[in-house]
Amino acid sequence: MKKRVVLALGGNALQKNGEATAEAQKKVAESVGKIIADLASNYEIVIAHGNGPQVGNILIHEETAATDKAPAMPLETAVAMSQGQIGYWLTQAISNAFLKRGKSTEVATVVSQVVVDRNDPAFKNPTKPIGQFYSESEAKKLAREKGWTVKEDSGRGWRRVVASPKPIDIVEKKAITEMVSSGIIVIAAGGGGIPVYRTKITKRLKGIDAVIDKDFAAEKLAELVKADIFVSVTAVPNVYINYGLPDQQALHQVTAKEIANLTKYGYFKAGSMLPKVEAAAIFAKKSRIGIITNIENLKTALAGHAGTIVKS
Amino acid sequence: MKKRVVLALGGNALQKNGEATAEAQKKVAESVGKIIADLASNYEIVIAHGNGPQVGNILIHEETAATDKAPAMPLETAVAMSQGQIGYWLTQAISNAFLKRGKSTEVATVVSQVVVDRNDPAFKNPTKPIGQFYSESEAKKLAREKGWTVKEDSGRGWRRVVASPKPIDIVEKKAITEMVSSGIIVIAAGGGGIPVYRTKITKRLKGIDAVIDKDFAAEKLAELVKADIFVSVTAVPNVYINYGLPDQQALHQVTAKEIANLTKYGYFKAGSMLPKVEAAAIFAKKSRIGIITNIENLKTALAGHAGTIVKS
Repeated sequence: MKKRVVLALGGNALQKNGEATAEAQKKVAESVGKIIADLASNYEIVIAHGNGPQVGNILIHEETAATDKAPAMPLETAVAMSQGQIGYWLTQAISNAFLKRGKSTEVATVVSQVVVDRNDPAFKNPTKPIGQFYSESEAKKLAREKGWTVKEDSGRGWRRVVASPKPIDIVEKKAITEMVSSGIIVIAAGGGGIPVYRTKITKRLKGIDAVIDKDFAAEKLAELVKADIFVSVTAVPNVYINYGLPDQQALHQVTAKEIANLTKYGYFKAGSMLPKVEAAAIFAKKSRIGIITNIENLKTALAGHAGTIVKS
Repeated sequence: MKKRVVLALGGNALQKNGEATAEAQKKVAESVGKIIADLASNYEIVIAHGNGPQVGNILIHEETAATDKAPAMPLETAVAMSQGQIGYWLTQAISNAFLKRGKSTEVATVVSQVVVDRNDPAFKNPTKPIGQFYSESEAKKLAREKGWTVKEDSGRGWRRVVASPKPIDIVEKKAITEMVSSGIIVIAAGGGGIPVYRTKITKRLKGIDAVIDKDFAAEKLAELVKADIFVSVTAVPNVYINYGLPDQQALHQVTAKEIANLTKYGYFKAGSMLPKVEAAAIFAKKSRIGIITNIENLKTALAGHAGTIVKS
């Protein structure tokens, strides 16, 4: 029996040196494809990718060039668009990597809605900046007109900020599970998923402008598809204590409890390593394995010989 | 055993009176959702939607607001984006229609690459206008810079034109078949599919800027998933001879051969009814049933009592 793995891939990882053309991003996707093709003989694979820079560019285009006839799409729909975009690049790159090895395989992207709680406290304190920069007066005008929350962003201008609520369910979980169980490599929950909530009485789905952290969404996906291993793929081989300082120390094997303690003492940066170690620890608590490593060490880490491995 | 149906839905159908906001299109998707929910107890359903106005707006935004840091996505990637967008709206609307009936069901959108032949004669004579209008000099400059073919469009200005090659395969066919066979309502081959071709020796997939007719793509999908019935859903209840003239005559039951004869005598308009009757006739030739009707008559037509029904 192959082990089932969910990988969380950063959206930044597809834009090397900030190169954002489709050609440049497809080129990077090719290198991801090779690594996935190498893993697929030993693992069932589901990939959840980020979309930070991609959805950012979509929003900039949508908002800058909006007209009455061609209005701007809202953030939740822009996330869906980025899932189509990045999912296409990744499926094609993975298929091609298999063909290069003289093999063929099935790869498919599922457009994924991720359910959040409308009462998640994050909605009371939106913190995630998205889209373009505005002057203070423009930003405040948009806030009035569209009900946006806007904030000054580190001296670079004003931006819209949205909530980053926690994922509680994935609408397409059965479709995704069905596919991975029949041997298909699945790309799902892209960009943390299209944020939706369920209305109170009828439980109907409704989109909401928010940004779901891709590591938390991928961890939820790993739970729902009953994965054996969850990996947050990042830029560095390990999680470190005192990263970049003389006494920097790589973590190799840690428990979810140790992660919680280190977090309490502020060892992990919010918006950087923190969501990755938290997601890995949540998954590890379910008697499973959470890993944080870079793509170069992925294969060795899955075999237990590299990366930061979190167990319960 | 439920019969398996592939529906080709027009992308125009989602924009009532040209209203192109996400809200307005979701509203229209809701009405589609209700009809699908009504059909699902008797049929396995795969939906292939068009994307004309939606991908048009995406391209306008991408091209108008492109910068070095946020470059415009090419047409093939824009099609992928429109699949995410429209697929999201439709899956959500269909799920919600089931919930309203106190039922739940699985619905999922698969990002779909449709394979065309790089030597399709269509590539020698691009005819399909896409994206924004330019002045003659701008258009000719873009043609030189980007290798585009540009043409004057009915006195309204200059536009890029691309090829409309025939679909020959759908990369994700196994994933789609797997899903529909396990009871999932699948949305696939949106906008005629992301146009790709296979390179000569390695057979690797490569995207290409083109527009695949959604009726032909949906018909190919119907063949590949071994559907029993293919329906091209359009704005009118039937196919007509001499449409709009005093001697207008609705077609009820026709053979593929009769369609071929009527086509020869120029009864069907290219870019309008022609691809629909051709797609239905191609499907009917495989001893199956092709139908052309509107969404209001869909249920009755599937039962054999409305629409234009094409048999071999």
